[in-house]
Amino acid sequence: MIRTIEWTDAGVVMLDQKLLPAQETYRTYTDYTGVAEAIRSMVVRGAPAIGVAAAMGVALGVKASLARSAGELDREFATVCDHIAGTRPTAVNLFWAVDRMKAAYARAKVEAQGAAAGDLLASVRDALVKEALAVHREDVAANRALGRFGQELIPDGARILTHCNAGALATAGHGTALGVVRAAVEAGKKVSVFADETRPFLQGARLTAWELAHDGIPVTVITDNMAGHFMHKGEIDCVIVGADRIARNGDVANKIGTYGVAVLAKENGVPFYVAAPVSTLDLSIPDGGRIKIEERDPDEVRRIQGVAITPEGVPVKNPSFDVTPARYVGAIITERGVARPDYAESLPALQSASQS
Amino acid sequence: MIRTIEWTDAGVVMLDQKLLPAQETYRTYTDYTGVAEAIRSMVVRGAPAIGVAAAMGVALGVKASLARSAGELDREFATVCDHIAGTRPTAVNLFWAVDRMKAAYARAKVEAQGAAAGDLLASVRDALVKEALAVHREDVAANRALGRFGQELIPDGARILTHCNAGALATAGHGTALGVVRAAVEAGKKVSVFADETRPFLQGARLTAWELAHDGIPVTVITDNMAGHFMHKGEIDCVIVGADRIARNGDVANKIGTYGVAVLAKENGVPFYVAAPVSTLDLSIPDGGRIKIEERDPDEVRRIQGVAITPEGVPVKNPSFDVTPARYVGAIITERGVARPDYAESLPALQSASQS
Repeated sequence: MIRTIEWTDAGVVMLDQKLLPAQETYRTYTDYTGVAEAIRSMVVRGAPAIGVAAAMGVALGVKASLARSAGELDREFATVCDHIAGTRPTAVNLFWAVDRMKAAYARAKVEAQGAAAGDLLASVRDALVKEALAVHREDVAANRALGRFGQELIPDGARILTHCNAGALATAGHGTALGVVRAAVEAGKKVSVFADETRPFLQGARLTAWELAHDGIPVTVITDNMAGHFMHKGEIDCVIVGADRIARNGDVANKIGTYGVAVLAKENGVPFYVAAPVSTLDLSIPDGGRIKIEERDPDEVRRIQGVAITPEGVPVKNPSFDVTPARYVGAIITERGVARPDYAESLPALQSASQS
Repeated sequence: MIRTIEWTDAGVVMLDQKLLPAQETYRTYTDYTGVAEAIRSMVVRGAPAIGVAAAMGVALGVKASLARSAGELDREFATVCDHIAGTRPTAVNLFWAVDRMKAAYARAKVEAQGAAAGDLLASVRDALVKEALAVHREDVAANRALGRFGQELIPDGARILTHCNAGALATAGHGTALGVVRAAVEAGKKVSVFADETRPFLQGARLTAWELAHDGIPVTVITDNMAGHFMHKGEIDCVIVGADRIARNGDVANKIGTYGVAVLAKENGVPFYVAAPVSTLDLSIPDGGRIKIEERDPDEVRRIQGVAITPEGVPVKNPSFDVTPARYVGAIITERGVARPDYAESLPALQSASQS
């Protein structure tokens, strides 16, 4: 069991994903600004894991509160939520988690109506910790459920390409794309994985390779620009990736390079699947054109593990995500079932369905 | 002027491309085995530059000969040629250059017929050095000529994507794909270049960025997996790449990742051009299926500039080239003119045409 992120009495404990696979270091965050910085700097990353971290960060902020009135608590809570929500723009799970904490806060306030300020604070604190733990627990359950749905799409013996890391490290545990892989293995299928190294942050080479090797699932690392070659040679049977945000029409924002993989898959007749919990759906936007794409520090491209690779002064670009139009997406696998095109119909139906 | 490779009295001098852009180091090779190792380890790389290095390596081998008979010289020459030809399998320019040296050797022997062994050796030596210098000189001339043909395809203001390095560093000077860029600049066009970083060897980030910055041509480095994103956003107007071998039907072997770029270009309506001297044509093979793809040391993928990025023991793949089917190639730009589909007709016509 990979412990990506955990709530403990000492604080929020995270496995530092910047240091894997060379070092397995756990960091303990005791205040919400530390959690925010961990999200921003990608100590923790992956849309569902960011959601969990955000929920825990908000809970941590309220836990530390010394507010002496309901009004003061409201202001502090708003500050904490804004700070956490301002860390990264693309993964909708971040905003979903903060909204969920806001709803829990509002409910707790109603329940504690008329109580003294100290009692109100205690009630709200307990409610938010409980809610953060629920976000964590439900994410693992969602991954397990979507894994079971998704594995039905995977043929025995499949050679599966994945991009970035949508595994246990990207979630509260188990994983989305890699949750499907794990479920296929649990179902007795002999599958193997090609992991795109996923420049610039190398989530595939560092994280996907690490966690699949950890579980004894066969994995081979390739550079991002090899994916097309192996598809063209008929050595890849399907592609599964995670998602950071899915629009109402099925357009998918995910790690930079996903779009290229999707186009190459279509060109070579290779099925392309997206695995994500319903918390990744953003049905408020009609299509992917509305998704804000984070542009990260150019040094992530200029340097690899600290070593400069480009000449001094040459500009680089570093968009962290791209948008894959729905027409390239064969299915969207969620914990409530598998959505197929037309997504504008199937996704809202899934979201309003009760959890299976 | 970038001095990629030069014949000097002291030996063959090469700019060590493994160390760029951090260090500008020139190495002098005094025997043919050193030149062979420089080709194999990619101190010098790029199909045309490999051809020049091969020719100079063969000349160096004969220059050092102490053969006391024509028979002994024949055997030594065959050993040298086999050793040089065995360094890398994909770029046809290597074999083209060795064949050219063999033809020069045969001619020199005929001319020196009846001479004493010492005189024969001197004649052959002079002829081979002359031939190697001609290969070098003609490559620069070919690049300049293909640049002029190619630049006519480039609109003013074009944002040009290139993959790997097909520049001065990949040739005797000036470059193929970058020769077209340079010719467009010389023609007064305001162009800019996106350079794919080109994992694993990082020819784009290290070499293309270095030589374009050296010439003051605007260049932006992106990771390989960003190319599709920028095409999809309409920020790339055309793609130009080099080639390592072009089959009779127009299938193009080039640096791994070229196929993916070509598919993405087609999907986004972006013209995709290949620039290469006719020495890169291999009309002896009907299509790209016959091209041997070199598989290089896995450590090139596992380590970046010496730093490990994958977990210990996880397998990787490292095919150094891929084959782009002719249907993705909008034009093949050579020093004898621009070939358009159907390549099975246009390429043989170009090859048999006299130099323009």
